[in-house]
Amino acid sequence: MPRGELAFIAALRELARNPAARGFEDDCAVLPFGAETLVLTHDTMVEGVHYLSGIDPADVAWKLVSVNLSDLAAKGAKPVGVLLSYMLCGDEERFVAGLDEALKFYDVPLLGGDTVGGSEAQVLGLTAVGRATHTPVPSRGGARPGDTLYLTGPVGGAMMAFEAYRDGAGERAAYLRPLALVSEGIALAPLVTAMMDVSDGLLLDAFRLARASGVTLEIETASVPIDAPEGRRAEALRWGDDYQLLFTAPADARLPVAAHRIGSVRAASGETLVLDGEPVSGTSGLGYEHG
Amino acid sequence: MPRGELAFIAALRELARNPAARGFEDDCAVLPFGAETLVLTHDTMVEGVHYLSGIDPADVAWKLVSVNLSDLAAKGAKPVGVLLSYMLCGDEERFVAGLDEALKFYDVPLLGGDTVGGSEAQVLGLTAVGRATHTPVPSRGGARPGDTLYLTGPVGGAMMAFEAYRDGAGERAAYLRPLALVSEGIALAPLVTAMMDVSDGLLLDAFRLARASGVTLEIETASVPIDAPEGRRAEALRWGDDYQLLFTAPADARLPVAAHRIGSVRAASGETLVLDGEPVSGTSGLGYEHG
Repeated sequence: MPRGELAFIAALRELARNPAARGFEDDCAVLPFGAETLVLTHDTMVEGVHYLSGIDPADVAWKLVSVNLSDLAAKGAKPVGVLLSYMLCGDEERFVAGLDEALKFYDVPLLGGDTVGGSEAQVLGLTAVGRATHTPVPSRGGARPGDTLYLTGPVGGAMMAFEAYRDGAGERAAYLRPLALVSEGIALAPLVTAMMDVSDGLLLDAFRLARASGVTLEIETASVPIDAPEGRRAEALRWGDDYQLLFTAPADARLPVAAHRIGSVRAASGETLVLDGEPVSGTSGLGYEHG
Repeated sequence: MPRGELAFIAALRELARNPAARGFEDDCAVLPFGAETLVLTHDTMVEGVHYLSGIDPADVAWKLVSVNLSDLAAKGAKPVGVLLSYMLCGDEERFVAGLDEALKFYDVPLLGGDTVGGSEAQVLGLTAVGRATHTPVPSRGGARPGDTLYLTGPVGGAMMAFEAYRDGAGERAAYLRPLALVSEGIALAPLVTAMMDVSDGLLLDAFRLARASGVTLEIETASVPIDAPEGRRAEALRWGDDYQLLFTAPADARLPVAAHRIGSVRAASGETLVLDGEPVSGTSGLGYEHG
């Protein structure tokens, strides 16, 4: 992320006067709305940056839906609809096919949006609208010393699938068709102390959760489930796009969904993240910091 | 609008299974949410298509907010927040300044969004979230024979201001800083039978209102207030970007805001739009049909 972008995001955060606004990038806005709580997120994907040129538009559509619903999942929010910003690319038929498939899979209606033409690289955006199923809505900022750190499933699968796609051989679904863990997020929301989806790499996202919570997170890297050869464990922990849920809960919590203990929370002690006993300084090399 | 886009929008409309979804382009999605009604809209603006390259980013930010809030205004919805999709352009400071100004002017919080890099032409999107103040929420489709057709104020101002901007002389505000008529829309919502904002040209938008309502609209062009020399009346009625509210109401309605009678509604008679007694066939030449 270039320095200018950080300053810009900081300026935008200052503009975000609603104290419930969680700011930019992965997170959602949480907004009281009548007796309900609205959870909103918007992700933009740029051809050549967030997806490869030449990829099947049906897969792009699927991913666009999934990455946004994954943000809602981390809030335990039930999706109620999406708004699409679509730049025409000449192969709209495949995009509609993938969009239809994703909307049916998640049982979410398309509510509206906008179509535009006119740029070299295609730019797509999706706003997902959800209804909170539990308040307070889980955030990254609630982890408490003594909590256990959990991950809903393996990471690294998207990395292996990306390479399979690149090399034209092997299982590619984890890269092309990621799944948002919507029902898992809803089930977990009442008992987690903090939750987020892993979109930019487990270690980077864990660092963000620790920083937001003002705690130190200790991770035993060997305990993290991976969908990759053991020799690539370090990479698997840093690759994004797996969309597992990372959360903290009291050590004695009875979890309603399968999850793996991968570490623990302790009081802030100077370090934000400790891997196998070694403190990590800064986020460099922990994952995908995108612009 | 290229033919492919129309087919695509039709396909998207089919995907929009929620019967309340109004579909694509200018209109809003209307969604029951608890005891309230949510009104959502998303407009995308592409550099070189929807705004000139080289224009002050502060003006672009203002317009991005205004065009979206104008969509809410036509629904009588009170804005509760916006989500921004922002592509970095290198001059973020000016954009933030204009955004700040617009959000303060409309008293609307920035709730979140996404920032991205990576395209030649800048692409910006905004999702505006509103709360309906009156149900049923006004739509384009409710005009009834016998109603009067009204316009809140003059059109053509944006055209003149665009030319002033292009020529470097004269009053440019109507082009650079359009106003969304939010409070007017809220005041009108309880008594209109149909309402929309004029963003693509008065005649084109009137045609759309008539078609959505299944009626014939008769407009006396001389009664339309314009902010342009009389010799340019025909153009003023076809130029977009003025964001006045166009609405129908019973002939005896007492309007809470100033508005001009510009025509009347009669039962469908083959023609959708009749100008000074002359039927208009099709939308060609009525306004700005954008891609």
